[in-house]
Amino acid sequence: MTNFVPTPTVPAPDIVRCAYMEIVVTDLARSREFYVDVLGLHVTEEDENAIYLRSLEEFIHHNLVLRKGPVAAVAAFAYRVKSPAEVDAAEAYYRELGCRVERRKEGFTKGVGDSVRVEDPLGFPYEFFYDVDHVERLTQRYDLYSAGELVRLDHFNQVTPDVPKGRKYLEDLGFRVSEDIKDSDGVTYAAWMHRKQTVHDTALTGGNGPRMHHVAFATHEKHNIIQICDKMGALRISDRIERGPGRHGVSNAFYLYILDPDGHRIEIYTQDYYTGDPDNPTITWDVHDNQRRDWWGNPVVPSWYTEASLVLDLDGNPQPVIEREEKSEMAVTIGADGFSYTRPEGAPAEGFKLGAQV
Amino acid sequence: MTNFVPTPTVPAPDIVRCAYMEIVVTDLARSREFYVDVLGLHVTEEDENAIYLRSLEEFIHHNLVLRKGPVAAVAAFAYRVKSPAEVDAAEAYYRELGCRVERRKEGFTKGVGDSVRVEDPLGFPYEFFYDVDHVERLTQRYDLYSAGELVRLDHFNQVTPDVPKGRKYLEDLGFRVSEDIKDSDGVTYAAWMHRKQTVHDTALTGGNGPRMHHVAFATHEKHNIIQICDKMGALRISDRIERGPGRHGVSNAFYLYILDPDGHRIEIYTQDYYTGDPDNPTITWDVHDNQRRDWWGNPVVPSWYTEASLVLDLDGNPQPVIEREEKSEMAVTIGADGFSYTRPEGAPAEGFKLGAQV
Amino acid sequence: MTNFVPTPTVPAPDIVRCAYMEIVVTDLARSREFYVDVLGLHVTEEDENAIYLRSLEEFIHHNLVLRKGPVAAVAAFAYRVKSPAEVDAAEAYYRELGCRVERRKEGFTKGVGDSVRVEDPLGFPYEFFYDVDHVERLTQRYDLYSAGELVRLDHFNQVTPDVPKGRKYLEDLGFRVSEDIKDSDGVTYAAWMHRKQTVHDTALTGGNGPRMHHVAFATHEKHNIIQICDKMGALRISDRIERGPGRHGVSNAFYLYILDPDGHRIEIYTQDYYTGDPDNPTITWDVHDNQRRDWWGNPVVPSWYTEASLVLDLDGNPQPVIEREEKSEMAVTIGADGFSYTRPEGAPAEGFKLGAQV
Amino acid sequence: MTNFVPTPTVPAPDIVRCAYMEIVVTDLARSREFYVDVLGLHVTEEDENAIYLRSLEEFIHHNLVLRKGPVAAVAAFAYRVKSPAEVDAAEAYYRELGCRVERRKEGFTKGVGDSVRVEDPLGFPYEFFYDVDHVERLTQRYDLYSAGELVRLDHFNQVTPDVPKGRKYLEDLGFRVSEDIKDSDGVTYAAWMHRKQTVHDTALTGGNGPRMHHVAFATHEKHNIIQICDKMGALRISDRIERGPGRHGVSNAFYLYILDPDGHRIEIYTQDYYTGDPDNPTITWDVHDNQRRDWWGNPVVPSWYTEASLVLDLDGNPQPVIEREEKSEMAVTIGADGFSYTRPEGAPAEGFKLGAQV
Repeated sequence: MTNFVPTPTVPAPDIVRCAYMEIVVTDLARSREFYVDVLGLHVTEEDENAIYLRSLEEFIHHNLVLRKGPVAAVAAFAYRVKSPAEVDAAEAYYRELGCRVERRKEGFTKGVGDSVRVEDPLGFPYEFFYDVDHVERLTQRYDLYSAGELVRLDHFNQVTPDVPKGRKYLEDLGFRVSEDIKDSDGVTYAAWMHRKQTVHDTALTGGNGPRMHHVAFATHEKHNIIQICDKMGALRISDRIERGPGRHGVSNAFYLYILDPDGHRIEIYTQDYYTGDPDNPTITWDVHDNQRRDWWGNPVVPSWYTEASLVLDLDGNPQPVIEREEKSEMAVTIGADGFSYTRPEGAPAEGFKLGAQV
Repeated sequence: MTNFVPTPTVPAPDIVRCAYMEIVVTDLARSREFYVDVLGLHVTEEDENAIYLRSLEEFIHHNLVLRKGPVAAVAAFAYRVKSPAEVDAAEAYYRELGCRVERRKEGFTKGVGDSVRVEDPLGFPYEFFYDVDHVERLTQRYDLYSAGELVRLDHFNQVTPDVPKGRKYLEDLGFRVSEDIKDSDGVTYAAWMHRKQTVHDTALTGGNGPRMHHVAFATHEKHNIIQICDKMGALRISDRIERGPGRHGVSNAFYLYILDPDGHRIEIYTQDYYTGDPDNPTITWDVHDNQRRDWWGNPVVPSWYTEASLVLDLDGNPQPVIEREEKSEMAVTIGADGFSYTRPEGAPAEGFKLGAQV
Repeated sequence: MTNFVPTPTVPAPDIVRCAYMEIVVTDLARSREFYVDVLGLHVTEEDENAIYLRSLEEFIHHNLVLRKGPVAAVAAFAYRVKSPAEVDAAEAYYRELGCRVERRKEGFTKGVGDSVRVEDPLGFPYEFFYDVDHVERLTQRYDLYSAGELVRLDHFNQVTPDVPKGRKYLEDLGFRVSEDIKDSDGVTYAAWMHRKQTVHDTALTGGNGPRMHHVAFATHEKHNIIQICDKMGALRISDRIERGPGRHGVSNAFYLYILDPDGHRIEIYTQDYYTGDPDNPTITWDVHDNQRRDWWGNPVVPSWYTEASLVLDLDGNPQPVIEREEKSEMAVTIGADGFSYTRPEGAPAEGFKLGAQV
Repeated sequence: MTNFVPTPTVPAPDIVRCAYMEIVVTDLARSREFYVDVLGLHVTEEDENAIYLRSLEEFIHHNLVLRKGPVAAVAAFAYRVKSPAEVDAAEAYYRELGCRVERRKEGFTKGVGDSVRVEDPLGFPYEFFYDVDHVERLTQRYDLYSAGELVRLDHFNQVTPDVPKGRKYLEDLGFRVSEDIKDSDGVTYAAWMHRKQTVHDTALTGGNGPRMHHVAFATHEKHNIIQICDKMGALRISDRIERGPGRHGVSNAFYLYILDPDGHRIEIYTQDYYTGDPDNPTITWDVHDNQRRDWWGNPVVPSWYTEASLVLDLDGNPQPVIEREEKSEMAVTIGADGFSYTRPEGAPAEGFKLGAQV
């Protein structure tokens, strides 16, 4: 059923980590307010068309580019590779895959040099680069440290209809799976994949795609995430808190999902675990385990499953969204009353969150 | 409309603080597992009929008595008064109110001496005592300090049909109101009332009563509360996490509601504020403000509004539950879809949690 | 030996809590930088001679007044009393004591009304007031919440030569002792005394006095205090960190001592315990217990014992400093090598911090 | 002057991370009490001669082996390599270096398979292995999560007389330098070196060696470290707290140094930063910067510089300790009075920690 992406004969580029995302926002001033004034990301550089932002501990030019445009969408998921030669490797790799590829010696964004962007086999705009401007790492600039400080870019999350197809493509590209969600019929609902030594650099969420589910920044501690909620409450934008805070089952991280003014979803994330050993155990969660998405069994809101951002092709036009054919995680886990449940059909409600609550 | 409780001519007893609650549980071993093994309360004393528990920083004999019985219920809301003479004052006060009163020189529970118990005008079993055994205060016993340590009894919360009536009665008894929830028609939905210098020793929640809504214990920091959730997840009893964790609008405390094996509701609570000045400002919240119950706008689950514990009369029989006649907070704030909203009828959904989520 | 202060025949004023301190600073701009830019206290009002500051959760006009003057000193330790009539009571009380007393209906500082200031029997400038402007309580202004936010004024600490004399005077004034430090010869080295339901509103530290040892502000959690250290490191003013952070033995609070540009000592303090019960147990520490000042046995630096701020009389002139005649805590606890020890003479060094360190 | 270790012609083994340390303790029961009861490490396996311990998030058999023996010392610094073939590579590498090498197919400790141990050019017993038993990863066993939980082995720290020599040897072995401490004469006092994507897997501290300076475990948050201090205070073993807690300048981690019953030094460590990019900037600190070792300028106690554990040769005999010939960090930074200073000779004391304190 699944139409797998072929494995190229040339070596995959050696990817270091997810490095930045370029997103299109419709009102640059309003987005600046959200990312700089509310979230406290640090401005490396800005002009009337774009703002280049970085997290506290970053030493490369940016982790997020806000670019002004007519339609809210994602222009690039950018990965850093291990050396300049690996940009060549990326170009060759995607050319063999038959993807549309664009190489720019001067880079696609300020601060970044020689880069290649591709429309990848799943329809996502991926970028690979090595050359980048170093900037002041603010790690010990505690005079700039806000109560909800974001210290690192942690990961991307992509919505794609066919998770096994995407997983194989990313494994070929050198990613390793740390965790996934499946059911007893063999359906895969999501997979978490890493290059750096954390749970993921990107994850695949089964759904209509290609779309961007979220981009995640890390904090040092849990209270930093709580402060972001408290601040959004104080600013009376609590309706932009979509889900959480909570503890993930998958990844074990403490998390929060919030929405920017265009509806781009941001995760704030802290304290997952080390995955750097070659035989790091992969954890498979049952889709019917209602602690998989929230360890405390708190319900996932429907919008979290249904909403996501468009992604752009290399001409800047939104990629068409293809419907998922397999079962949807929302459909198999949320009852008519809006709460998650985990019991198999016919099982008694006792001991399940739903039964206890309504 | 409201039938107020008359103010006695004798002085009210000088109450220091809420001191302990006595609850009836149906399976003592199962309750012990919950309160001792899961929550880590410290056993002062126990026998086959009862367990006497205290929080880390307590120096009196107990903050919670679990007593074995046939029907889960609350046997006493006990307050400590300022001196032995104030127990006499309490007796006189309630006799003048025409309440049923029972005085026991030897106390109603182990560890407590001369006490008076009453069936108060709202139907609750209130106790007043001064004499009590001092026990080791475990404040600096960090060798016993668990990751989710409960350090103090913080407050009671009582469900009563007529909040203004209850409020006046408690004000006469010397309590002061720190916060309340009202609407533009003058309906009071809830009130928070204190003797010690925090937001409350007890609160009145409008609803069918008399019933016990919850009893609350304090932790030092927010991460202690998160650990309790994490531990309940690990023990696969996440269905006993009813609501939260979150930040209260009212009281500003970080909170969590969990359910014991009999369905008695426990709140874990931290970091409200000082209320000891005589002119401490009372904060009134609009019932339609969806940040009043959760500062982040997260929805209140229906069970939180509807479920509560029975309370006993002085013979140990459950008090009949009288229906609230005024508007219910749940009815005016929860839509058909199960989420809170705050917009007046006809107002656009934008900017409201509900609109953004479903 | 000790010359006690007589107990007046008129009732003591009913004190609610320590409310504010007025300090004289020699460079207002430099002090503003420290208290506002570094520590994040909130400016209620300011002019060219004075700055009125408050902590996040305060609802009265100020907790700290910085007043420009030629000599760094303390102009007032101000307490709030329970009603306007208690200001009269304070005046009468100190007149009977034969103290110099000044009453000002318009107050001594902006924002405060009818007040009385006295030169108290220990030589300290004490103030008592009830009338005060209410200002916005910033408790839920998380948009203003800094990573090291100071949320309450917690207490004063006064250096006085004769602690038992000062203790009796304050007990007459209605304070109760929560903890003290003594030795086996009956010498008292320090005492902690409270009106509100925490460990102290003020403490007496035995030494040359009258001088002000420190004024303390509370944070919500321990990490807030660590952030203040980190920020002072980032600003390269780590030499203003005098002692800590650490855990106190006495009070059990997590603490930090820092120095303002004039050398006034500020403590940052969090998580002591409830003391509101009438029979709250008093804890006596042995001066030779090297965990009394720091629960982890870290050494107290000599300056912490020897340095303190002058206090002013009602004309604004520094009070002469009288030498302590009894044993000094520093002398009995710090060895020639600069570290604390606790062993009795002749005892082996093993197991003592000193022995393990040098 | 420095006699460098030659670079082998065969490839260095591909090291993944520091994996475990084997230490010899003189009283197994007493050490068990310290590591299991006080620190909460988890016992994988134990017998009368050895205890195998792991941290919460570990999935390999152990991170620490306590082996009973006559002299407290370190028997192995063990690294995990990327594949079984890399054990062969390690053997070949050290044979070419002319080191004593021992290969054991069945491993040197329980739970570990095919391994090679060497006496390395600096005199340290290094081990390399790939095969290891997987055990339950306790990451989400919050029912076992103590308030001071140790979640990962973080790094080793080795004392060696000639840091540049050791640094070159480790760079040849594939380690990269994240930070170092130097002076203006070109003397290197210490260097931090990593394979995994943190600040270090091991560090070299200039001093008399080969000796083991410390082994470090990570916690999730700062309060976990504070709890370890609090617990050691409660157990009245505060004399085993040697230094800290504090914030490192180097690495930016929050830290604590404690001593086990044999004097082996353990660091508890949290929140350093990501170093995985190939061009991760190396930070060089001036030895005269008194915030390098403690960001808050708190003094380093002399024992921290002078004391360290012996290491064993492959016969189990202690390696002779060779004196450092270059300047010692302690000598150039600690004054006669026991505090650190940073001022160049002749510079005024103002603004320096020392000047401000004594």
